[in-house]
This record gives sequence, C-alpha cells and structure tokens, in this order.
Amino acid sequence: MVSKNQIKLISSLHQKKQRFANQLFFAEGVKVIQELLQSNFELEHLYTTLNDFEAVQPSKRTLINEQELKKISALTTPNSCLAVFKIPAENKVIDSGLIVALDDIRDPGNLGTILRLCDWFGIKQIVCSKETVDIYNPKVVQATMGSIARVNVNYVDLKTFINQTNLPVFGTFMDGENIYQSNLPQNGIIVMGNEANGISAEIENIVTSRLTIPRFGDLQKTESLNVATATAIILSEFKRNS
Amino acid sequence: MVSKNQIKLISSLHQKKQRFANQLFFAEGVKVIQELLQSNFELEHLYTTLNDFEAVQPSKRTLINEQELKKISALTTPNSCLAVFKIPAENKVIDSGLIVALDDIRDPGNLGTILRLCDWFGIKQIVCSKETVDIYNPKVVQATMGSIARVNVNYVDLKTFINQTNLPVFGTFMDGENIYQSNLPQNGIIVMGNEANGISAEIENIVTSRLTIPRFGDLQKTESLNVATATAIILSEFKRNS
Repeated sequence: MVSKNQIKLISSLHQKKQRFANQLFFAEGVKVIQELLQSNFELEHLYTTLNDFEAVQPSKRTLINEQELKKISALTTPNSCLAVFKIPAENKVIDSGLIVALDDIRDPGNLGTILRLCDWFGIKQIVCSKETVDIYNPKVVQATMGSIARVNVNYVDLKTFINQTNLPVFGTFMDGENIYQSNLPQNGIIVMGNEANGISAEIENIVTSRLTIPRFGDLQKTESLNVATATAIILSEFKRNS
Repeated sequence: MVSKNQIKLISSLHQKKQRFANQLFFAEGVKVIQELLQSNFELEHLYTTLNDFEAVQPSKRTLINEQELKKISALTTPNSCLAVFKIPAENKVIDSGLIVALDDIRDPGNLGTILRLCDWFGIKQIVCSKETVDIYNPKVVQATMGSIARVNVNYVDLKTFINQTNLPVFGTFMDGENIYQSNLPQNGIIVMGNEANGISAEIENIVTSRLTIPRFGDLQKTESLNVATATAIILSEFKRNS
C-alpha cells in the first residue's frame, strides 16, 4: 500500500521546484527503472503492481494495486511500476570530444529524444542553458528510455561556458555551409536552438562555424525541421566519417 | 457563435470513424490552416477568435470567443483558430522516385514528424499500412505543420503494393549493411517499422536491401532510435549525394 504522504510527495515531484527541494525525481516502466538501477542512480523507493524487481531490498519496495499506481503516475496509461530516485550531484563537465549545447529547448519530448540520440552516437556531454526544460521532468525521463543514465547533463550559463572553452562552435542557420560538404571535426560544441526562435542572438555571435542542412522540397514553402530530427541529421553527419 | 450542432460535429471528428463518415477533418493554428487553404484542401468552415483570414468568404467564417474555441479544440492550450476541411479523394500513388512505406506506425506525433521530414527531403509519396494511424487524426495534422498539403499519402496493403512495383525495397535491421557505406539509389521503397516491433516478418521477407544505422555509444546498453529520428538519418543519407 502507498500512504497518503507518499502520494503527496510523488505528486509534488511533478514540479521542478519540489524535485529540487526534495532532491528526488521519479521514473516509470520496467525498462527505464532497470536502466537507472543498473547505473549510479540511488533508489529511494520502488512501487510496483507485480512481484518483480526481486533484487531490490524489501524495505525499498512496495507492492501496490493498479488504482494506487494511477494515483501516482504521470502517464495517461500507467505502466506497472514507478520508482523514486535521488537526484545525483552534478558531475563535472567533460569538455573534450563532441558536446551538444541546448539553447532553451522547452519541450520535454525533444530533450528526451536528443538525449537518446546523444547516447546512440556516443556523445558523452550535453550542456543546457538555464532556460532549457529540466532533465528530471517526468516526460523527459520517460522519453530518454534510460539514456539519462549514460549521458552527462549540466545546466550552465551557455555563453560563459562556450567562451571559456577553446572548442569550435557549430550552429545551423539558413545561410550556413552545406553540412554534407563540410569538414566536421570530432571536437567541438554543437549548438541546437529553441523550438520557436532557433539559436539566440547572444549565442549566434559566438558560433564559429555556420552550417546548414540542405532542403530538397519546395524551397518556398517547406517548414523547418523539428529540433530533434535536425539533431539526428547533424549528429549522423558528424559521426559518419569518424 | 458556434452552435451546439457544430460543437457536436467537430467533437465527433476526433474519432476516425466519424471523420470517415463525414469526410471531414480539422486543423488548428494560423500556420497550418494557411498552408491548407493555399493548397488544394477545400474549406468547410473556419472558426476564429480574431478578425483574421479576410480572404475566406464571410459565410464560411465564424468569429468565436476563447471559451467556445476551448470547447472544440483538441489542444490543451488552444491556438486562435480551428478550421474544418473536406477530406480530399485519395490521389493515385506516385510509384517512382523514393517512396517511404510505413509498416504500422501508431504514434500520431511520429507520423506527423515523418511527413514533415518527407516534405523537407522532397519525398513525394508515403504509403501506409492499413494499421498505421490515420493521417487526418488531429495530432498528426498538428505535427505535420502544414506538410500534409505537400506529400501524397495513401493507405494500402503494404505487401501487395510492394510486390507489384519493381522497386528495390530498403529496411533497417541490426544485421544490415552500414548505411554510411552503402550505395543508395534515388528510386526505391524505404520501409520504416512499428515503434515497438519494427518491420513485420511479412514485409521483412520482401526487403531486398538490409541496411543498418551504426551505433557509436555503449553497444551493450544503448536503446534503439525512435522511428522519426531514424527516418531523419535514413532520408538524409539517401539524399546527401543525390
């Protein structure tokens, strides 16, 4: 059984402020929870409707029914389990290799998808502007499918961070160099901009290489790419010849 | 003002069965509606909270307030307008060039994003299995950002369709040829599989070229790519040298 206080705590973790105050977040579903358990995340408590997760010590595991799960879940169709984890201390930024810098990504699904892409392409570090959606937002955690355990994410003042590295800075713009014909190094910062406004003027000023993903459709009418699919194409280009 | 009957009709269009029975669908937001108006879609009626869309004849335009919009909108945060359009007759399949074939894509956001990608990369034709989510689902229409007006979409029996063309058939699998080292033609069918199960066995049997997108992360643990980001990478590879 899950107590009223536990329900209250988990519900409060839907809000960033409360996650920060309690230094806790939650994840749902066997796959994501397993990934987090197998990595360095410290389990606070697991709630499950099944007799699974035998490896978790009984004092940290509560069998609940589906109605109880529905009360604490952030999903419209709840999975079979929900786990509360401690938010780990931020690791030091890994300032070599390829770094993805996110300039105010607001949509949780986009951030989760970008994290999953970084994991796929072996990118070890994401730096986010302070306005970027919180990585421990339940929708982000869900969309990462467990990748959250394998990519280092830091929230920084993006301008200060970029200025203090000596890495080349890549951004995509309408007037950039054709990315398919560019020489792309294995060290550098790849900036991805906000869903509505793109890369901010402040960051655009410190971009050293302006790239573009060529369009093949009707040039007058075709909509821009979604930021997650643009990231997919850009990371694929950076890694394909590496 | 929007009448009770109009509210009832628009609400019913959230369901595929009712869209089919009425041969109507709806779109929301200035950008998407403008794109549909400028293309071949026939407007049934426009509901707007602003004095905009002057080009639309007054008999087809109703000024409504925000509460009324909330009643008919499918969005949590409604835009300023909603328009009901006639579902056009299905065009003939364009069976040359590159065709994207969707084998049971269930998520509306994924279908909308794939449509937008096809538009970007100049792919003129998508064929969907009958189990693929309906293109006139409000969430699909929204995610396409207007691209729905520029890519031809047909629902077919995928196996029969593929068998009657003489085009090469591409699919991505764990054991395929490295897509970065493959010779990719400008004619062919690119099959993308279901979110959970990938390409079905029936379709896998008629794939002529097995491809793979190489992983660069931890090979033991990294999750698969989301189908929309995989489509982005594959279309980029097919078009980059075209």
